Amino acid sequence: MRERLRNFIESSRFEWTITAVIVANAIVLGLETVPSIMRDYGGLLLWLDQIAIAIFVIELLLKLFVYRFKFFANGWNVFDLIIVGAALVPASQQFSVLRALRILRALRLISVVPSMRKVIVGLFKAIPSIGTVIVMLLLLFYISAVMATKLFGEAFPDWFGNLGLSLYSLFQIMTLESWSMGIVRPVMEVYPYAWAFFVPFILLTSFIVLNLFIGVIVNAMAEATGEEAHSEREEILLQLKALREDVAKLGKQG
Amino acid sequence: MRERLRNFIESSRFEWTITAVIVANAIVLGLETVPSIMRDYGGLLLWLDQIAIAIFVIELLLKLFVYRFKFFANGWNVFDLIIVGAALVPASQQFSVLRALRILRALRLISVVPSMRKVIVGLFKAIPSIGTVIVMLLLLFYISAVMATKLFGEAFPDWFGNLGLSLYSLFQIMTLESWSMGIVRPVMEVYPYAWAFFVPFILLTSFIVLNLFIGVIVNAMAEATGEEAHSEREEILLQLKALREDVAKLGKQG
Amino acid sequence: MRERLRNFIESSRFEWTITAVIVANAIVLGLETVPSIMRDYGGLLLWLDQIAIAIFVIELLLKLFVYRFKFFANGWNVFDLIIVGAALVPASQQFSVLRALRILRALRLISVVPSMRKVIVGLFKAIPSIGTVIVMLLLLFYISAVMATKLFGEAFPDWFGNLGLSLYSLFQIMTLESWSMGIVRPVMEVYPYAWAFFVPFILLTSFIVLNLFIGVIVNAMAEATGEEAHSEREEILLQLKALREDVAKLGKQG
Amino acid sequence: MRERLRNFIESSRFEWTITAVIVANAIVLGLETVPSIMRDYGGLLLWLDQIAIAIFVIELLLKLFVYRFKFFANGWNVFDLIIVGAALVPASQQFSVLRALRILRALRLISVVPSMRKVIVGLFKAIPSIGTVIVMLLLLFYISAVMATKLFGEAFPDWFGNLGLSLYSLFQIMTLESWSMGIVRPVMEVYPYAWAFFVPFILLTSFIVLNLFIGVIVNAMAEATGEEAHSEREEILLQLKALREDVAKLGKQG
Repeated sequence: MRERLRNFIESSRFEWTITAVIVANAIVLGLETVPSIMRDYGGLLLWLDQIAIAIFVIELLLKLFVYRFKFFANGWNVFDLIIVGAALVPASQQFSVLRALRILRALRLISVVPSMRKVIVGLFKAIPSIGTVIVMLLLLFYISAVMATKLFGEAFPDWFGNLGLSLYSLFQIMTLESWSMGIVRPVMEVYPYAWAFFVPFILLTSFIVLNLFIGVIVNAMAEATGEEAHSEREEILLQLKALREDVAKLGKQG
Repeated sequence: MRERLRNFIESSRFEWTITAVIVANAIVLGLETVPSIMRDYGGLLLWLDQIAIAIFVIELLLKLFVYRFKFFANGWNVFDLIIVGAALVPASQQFSVLRALRILRALRLISVVPSMRKVIVGLFKAIPSIGTVIVMLLLLFYISAVMATKLFGEAFPDWFGNLGLSLYSLFQIMTLESWSMGIVRPVMEVYPYAWAFFVPFILLTSFIVLNLFIGVIVNAMAEATGEEAHSEREEILLQLKALREDVAKLGKQG
Repeated sequence: MRERLRNFIESSRFEWTITAVIVANAIVLGLETVPSIMRDYGGLLLWLDQIAIAIFVIELLLKLFVYRFKFFANGWNVFDLIIVGAALVPASQQFSVLRALRILRALRLISVVPSMRKVIVGLFKAIPSIGTVIVMLLLLFYISAVMATKLFGEAFPDWFGNLGLSLYSLFQIMTLESWSMGIVRPVMEVYPYAWAFFVPFILLTSFIVLNLFIGVIVNAMAEATGEEAHSEREEILLQLKALREDVAKLGKQG
Repeated sequence: MRERLRNFIESSRFEWTITAVIVANAIVLGLETVPSIMRDYGGLLLWLDQIAIAIFVIELLLKLFVYRFKFFANGWNVFDLIIVGAALVPASQQFSVLRALRILRALRLISVVPSMRKVIVGLFKAIPSIGTVIVMLLLLFYISAVMATKLFGEAFPDWFGNLGLSLYSLFQIMTLESWSMGIVRPVMEVYPYAWAFFVPFILLTSFIVLNLFIGVIVNAMAEATGEEAHSEREEILLQLKALREDVAKLGKQG
């Protein structure tokens, strides 16, 4: 019984069905944003959504039954469980945010399509090599936010009034959005030397983000081209060693 | 007769003539935007445009006659056919948009200049390797647009009133144009936690676009440098194998 | 006499002197922008500028005398000649633009410092491989400018009133500066489907610029890492061929 | 005694303690930005800060005692000394900037965490190969600032009134922030040909910054993938040479 269920849920037909349900559910949740459709077919859409959730719940229960505790060993299963589980939390009128989160179920597409799963796994694999740079970026942000709050917080409470506001404003400045006309020029009218804080901040974050990019690019490049070349050179070395043995035999023979 | 025509339309003189007509036609259509020139030489310009269209139609008819059904096997021929065909649709006053589309004929330059054709072909070749990442970007956009419409649609109908407006606003935010001062700060005055939606959106789209870039760069790099190195290593391996045979012969000889 | 002059102007001491004069001249021209210094030491600064020009003129006359017509074979000499020659044009009050151009003389620093010359030469070397992409970018700009002028010129004469204004506005949109809040959203209030023109324009220019970048990066990379690896593989092949000859001799010997 | 102290300060337990003190001190300085916490626990926080400084001073004195003059041979020690020393300068009310600088002590995290130290060292290593490009960028900025001051200084004193203001405005334009809508369009209303100054400036700085990026990327790439491949090719060459010797011996033997 359990073996037959395993075959069933691991069959490509089952996987395609789930993929289709995910896509259909995403379309239904998208249609819910159109007021005219919601007015005319609202009941149908909510009913389709209930069916999709039911299918997801049954799918996960089947997997839990088949894999038992091994179910939790696969990160993607846990990912699915959280996303589907969130849909079961009763959402009253006041938790409209929770209802908006239902569309996150479409993210399950990533866990069922192997090539997308690979991109995400690639991201997590890149983290060790770029982890240090990310920590440095966070450190720079923390230091800059503390300084900005102490220096400009009193005069510009909307932008640098507390640590959170400063972090947000510095993130905006890092993306270069309205950094000068919107933020730094007004600040310079009160503190004329404010550029000495913001210009280095922009240069440093640009440099660290560049380092992040390079880390990811070099990783991807080394994987893409390096391995093939490496195995070809290995093959050359093997051939060379075999040749030396041939020559050595020849020497004994002679 | 058909063979002689084939030689004629495949001659470089014919190709240069067509290229010249395309460039001249593009200049004529550009001059039409200058009111003073249009007032004085409007008739001449329209007449030159008619001649250019006539030449293009004759060119395509010749190619159709020579290549018969093979004509449609070449994507660039179909491309030319659509662009020239669009010019033959009668454009009344109310379809001024159609008249503005006539300048798209200058795109034919891409189909007649081989090096440009190569760039476009390169783009289409890169699609398989970046297709997954593009689908993920579209998925992220769809999910975010549904959420933004549900969360902020009522309070900000101009930006997030429906799925289309949300998609446009999120595209603007992805390009980082006025994302904070223009959109997110006003939104945060109503929903103070809006940053928890927009900042991750910016980080995720940046990460996915970075992945897109890397995909294209790694592809281009592998093609540019990898192939030469690969063939050189192949040559080394061939030499090695020949050498082993030489040594083996020597062994038998001895 | 001519030989002794050649030794003199090719000596490193002469080159260092010219470099020093260029830097000093650049500083003098910079000081001229400070009103208080100009009021107190204006005469001195203008006099120092005259001396610098005199030195440059003498330098070029010496080079002309020594190299004769070969002088013009070196592009950097022509570059120097134009820059210094521009300073000799008498600039009346109304040509204050010409006076502002004098600081361009500091660009001579590039022609005297070898490592800077190399960067510029590298740029010109990269042009053949990226030339096609640049032409495609110009073609896209021309087509888009003609279309924008015809479609939006009447309603928005400040942005798209003629071909020149359209080209400028499209350049601004390509750099993503205020493209949505500043340009496209106002245009969409008159032409609701304007996004169907601008969003593809942004995507296409981004793609073409990305191609430009990749062209330059791949070129630089291939030069930097490829040549060394290539010569090492050549060495391996040479060794292999020598070895085969050794083995062949051994065969005859046996 | 000195030897035992050396063992103590080079032990990993000591290093972890210092790291913990740095992090704790950074958190304390961050909490000082929250007014309510400062009101209730201000005394405690200032006292904790004093303790952290005391620990840092003792740490540096120990290192000075152990390493004597070799202490100054390590750049990171000098870095620590400056940062800790700055905290000892008595900061009166009017030097609130100095008090804001205390959070810079968190930068000591870089000098104690080896992987971060490596990123910074990597930056300094990259400088020789990108130094020329940086000098060219500074030259372009200086020339453009002098020109902008002379051309637009009178009409737009806020943006181009003197060399410093021009440099700041040009930096803003280089980052593309509000360059057109905010700066160049207003300037073009007075000087219609201002685009002929600003558009080339944007293209040139983009090109130079692209060169900077490429320099850093090529460096990183060559280090990451080149060395391994290089050593593998070295190994192949060594094997080949050994083989030739084997064959040569065989020849003599025969």
